[in-house]
Formats: sequence, structure tokens, C-alpha cells
Amino acid sequence: MLDLWYSEKLSEGAKFSMLVDEHIYSEETPFQKIDFFNTKTFGKFFTLDGLIMLTEKDEFIYHEMITAVPMAVNPNIKKVLIIGGGDGGTAREILRYNTIEKVDMVEIDERVVRLCQKYLPSTACKLDNDDRLKLYFEDGLAFVRDAKEGSYDLILVDSTDPIGPGEGLFTHEFYKNCYRVLSEDGILINQHESPYYDEYRREMKRSHSKIKNNFPIAKVYQFHMPTYASGHWLFGFASKKYDPVADLKADEWNCFGIKTKYYNTDLHIGAFALPNYVKEELESV
Amino acid sequence: MLDLWYSEKLSEGAKFSMLVDEHIYSEETPFQKIDFFNTKTFGKFFTLDGLIMLTEKDEFIYHEMITAVPMAVNPNIKKVLIIGGGDGGTAREILRYNTIEKVDMVEIDERVVRLCQKYLPSTACKLDNDDRLKLYFEDGLAFVRDAKEGSYDLILVDSTDPIGPGEGLFTHEFYKNCYRVLSEDGILINQHESPYYDEYRREMKRSHSKIKNNFPIAKVYQFHMPTYASGHWLFGFASKKYDPVADLKADEWNCFGIKTKYYNTDLHIGAFALPNYVKEELESV
Repeated sequence: MLDLWYSEKLSEGAKFSMLVDEHIYSEETPFQKIDFFNTKTFGKFFTLDGLIMLTEKDEFIYHEMITAVPMAVNPNIKKVLIIGGGDGGTAREILRYNTIEKVDMVEIDERVVRLCQKYLPSTACKLDNDDRLKLYFEDGLAFVRDAKEGSYDLILVDSTDPIGPGEGLFTHEFYKNCYRVLSEDGILINQHESPYYDEYRREMKRSHSKIKNNFPIAKVYQFHMPTYASGHWLFGFASKKYDPVADLKADEWNCFGIKTKYYNTDLHIGAFALPNYVKEELESV
Repeated sequence: MLDLWYSEKLSEGAKFSMLVDEHIYSEETPFQKIDFFNTKTFGKFFTLDGLIMLTEKDEFIYHEMITAVPMAVNPNIKKVLIIGGGDGGTAREILRYNTIEKVDMVEIDERVVRLCQKYLPSTACKLDNDDRLKLYFEDGLAFVRDAKEGSYDLILVDSTDPIGPGEGLFTHEFYKNCYRVLSEDGILINQHESPYYDEYRREMKRSHSKIKNNFPIAKVYQFHMPTYASGHWLFGFASKKYDPVADLKADEWNCFGIKTKYYNTDLHIGAFALPNYVKEELESV
């Protein structure tokens, strides 16, 4: 049997490895290197510039947590902007809510979308068959700069780490424009890195510092994501007026009747109860 | 520089690796193989039969969560039995509570204690200088079989996985005896494995099934433990009358004035809010 391992460095002195059945496809685009693999333990997975984006085994955790949390705080969200998210998982999850009227998805690299449609239909399945969704292959930073004031209820920043094409999405200017294009009910959710390893903790703090400067409410929530560094991953929740716990509308969310494998409204509250060491790091910025 | 990696299999197709500065010590006891290592990223760590027991970087998470949760549900706990826990971390944490009168610690392998005293004083520091603690180098299963009815308020099962010397601690007979030796206020906390990888999920379910058969209240709580398989780890909370959330005494626990790096009383509630897929697996047993 082929003993081929994909390894990802989590920190200077730590790595995570997956046994690969087949390296399905590899392509170098103007933006990044895209690779698809097949495994027995995790199903298919893909990487951008050698970093795991998702595996079929646990992508549901990330995609439920990025979408269900804001929907349970403001169940009246109608207009959504997704920045990044080329694999389609975030779009798939948000489109499960019938009350959503419009989803604009801005992915800088069209090849990510096209290749996920070919190799990862389990996440990309909703990218070409829902009239509410419109795809834009542009830079997210430029898109929000040009977007109309107050035109979205929800922005989901489903980005890579702040190195390479995702870099502009971690800037002060980006968050400032997000605030402007959000409605008065607006919520911003962003990929917020991780507290455990030094390299990720640094980015977590940088990101939090910028969001705090632009939004009156800026909280962080956690979830268990086994194939991301340390398994302890974070999203940021920023808004103009809603507190993610005090304004949770558990009954309304449960009325949607959306079956989830990870999220529930008790866990929603628990996700915002951070460990002391994480709170201290965030408060120190 | 030496490029020496310690690797641990998490599942058939996954592994976690740490860059090792030095393999400090190795010994084969009648029970198991014990190894100590030094690293830059995680400080020192030790393994039993090639499986990570703890690293200096994240042991605080495990040891706070095994002790603070029961102390916040019943702050009047006085008499504690620790089964396993040879590294001393669990004893160190429970002895921080001045109200604790007696801790009996039963570790099958004296060499684990002696070697941790030598190589891991950060966890073993309280094993020889607190009169409330008594060490027994015996089999935990036999110890609870012989212990007097109602003689402990709290049992902490800080065991290895249910293979090798830890095996007897995952049996029906063991839990039945735990019930008998606990007082009417009694609480049992046990190392409860992990929900994500098949091999660990199987043990999680077996363990839960046996505890449920012996205790009227049997819940499970989670925490982020980056150096354990998947980073999503569980403890079981079983008791004769206390519900871990409804009976949480947050104010009383906060009055202890114990400074913790992970645990807090909001997180206590959140830890019991399990993901749907974990709840379903536990309910299916």
C-alpha cells in the first residue's frame, strides 16, 4: 500500500499529517497553488499553497458555525455577502435558510470555485443552482470599497490565513468598509484564527484589534475543528447593535427547522464562553 | 540541528508530531514503557507505551477541567480519591482548594510518580509536601473494591486509554464500586476519550454506557486539548444527585479565589453544551 503522508506544520515544532490514498489534482493559478487529495479517514481534502482548507469529514463544523450563529442572532437577515469561501460550503449552509433573498459571493480565484465544483461537489453543490446566489471573481477588498452603503445584513469573511491572497481581508481598511456596507442590523463574521500556537495567536490578536476599532460590538467564539491547527478555532462576531448572547433568538432559530450536525442554540452560548487564557490575550490588544 | 520527531497515530490515517530536542529518559516497568522528552514548542512531555500523557504547554487545561468542574458543583467536597494521575497534575490542582481535607491517590505504577517527580516537577510538585495527600501504589480496581462505603465525596479517574494497565478502570465492576464508595453527595469524574476519530469514539461510547448503568446522573463535558487526538476531549460527570449545570454554584466557586488559566464558571456551562453529533453518539448507547 502507498504510504504517502500529507503534513502541515502547525508551529515551528508541531505538525499534523494525513495518510493520502491519491493526489488527485494540482494546479498553479495566478493567485496560489491548489491541490486535491483523497484519503480514507477524512474523505477528500484540498489545500491552498500547502495549507488545509477543508476535509469532507469535518467541514460541516466550520460551515455551520459561520452561518448559524448570525442567523440565530438576527433571523431576519436577507442580504448576505460572502468574501472568499470558494469551496462553496458557506454558501451551501446559508442558502439552507429559505428567508435569505440574496447572496453575493466574492472569490478572488475563479479556479478554486471551478475545481471544487469538479472535485468537491459535496461543498460546491449550491454554487450553480440557486438563483439567489451571484458569483463575483474579484478582490474582496476592492468589492467592499465599491459596494453601496447599508446594502447587506450579513458579511461572512471565509478567508485563508492573512498571508497571500487573503492578506487584504485582515486590514483596517477592509473592516471599515465592511461597517459601511452593513445595514443598521448588520453582522460581520470572520475567520479569526486560533489561540494556541504562537503564529496563529499573533494573527488572532491583530485581527481582533482591527475589528474592535471599527465595530461597537466585537466578540469571539470558538469551536472544535480537528483538522485545523490545535483543533481550537475561532470566528469573530462583530455588529452594530446585536450582542451575540443577550440577543440570541433561540426559539426563532429552532423554528427554521434546519437540521445541523454540530450547532445548536445551547452550544451557541457555550461557544462564546472562552477560556481565561484566550480572553486575556484578546483583552490585551 | 537534530530533526527528531515524535509521532502519535490519532487514527489509521492521521498523526500528530512534535519536534524533539532531546529524548531525556526511557524505562520499561512491569506495567508499561515510560519516556520523557524535551521540546521547544511544548516544553517537556512524557509518554506511556508511546502515547502522549501530557505536555507542559497544555496540561493546565486537562487538570483544571478535571478538578474545577466538580468543585463548582459541590464546593463542600472534602474527601477525594484519585485513580491514576501519576504525573501529579490532578493532585496539584485539587490540593489548591484549602477546604479539601484528604486526597487518596492510587497509582498502579510507582515508577510513573518517581520519574515525574524527577523530570516533571511542574506537575508532580505537590506529591511529597502536602499532608492531606496519601499515595497508594496499587491497582485502582482492587482499591475501590476494598474501600469503605460512602467514604469519598469525589472520585477522579485520571487514567490512560482503556488498553494496558488502565483497562480495568473502564469496566462495569469498577463503576459499580465507585458508586458504592461515594457519599450521597458523591461525584465521579472520568477521562472519557474523544468523539471524532472512530477508535476513540468507540471507547467514549463504551465508557458512557457503563457509567449510565450505574449512576442516575451521567453527563459528558468537553474541552479544547490541543495535544490529544483531534483536540476535542471529554470528561464524564456522574453523580448521585447533582446536575452539573442546574446545580452549578458559580458564586461559591468564584469565592475560592482560585486563579485558573482555562476554567471559568461561564465556560463550565458551555462545556456541557455538546455538538449534535456528539449528543447523538452518546444517546445511541
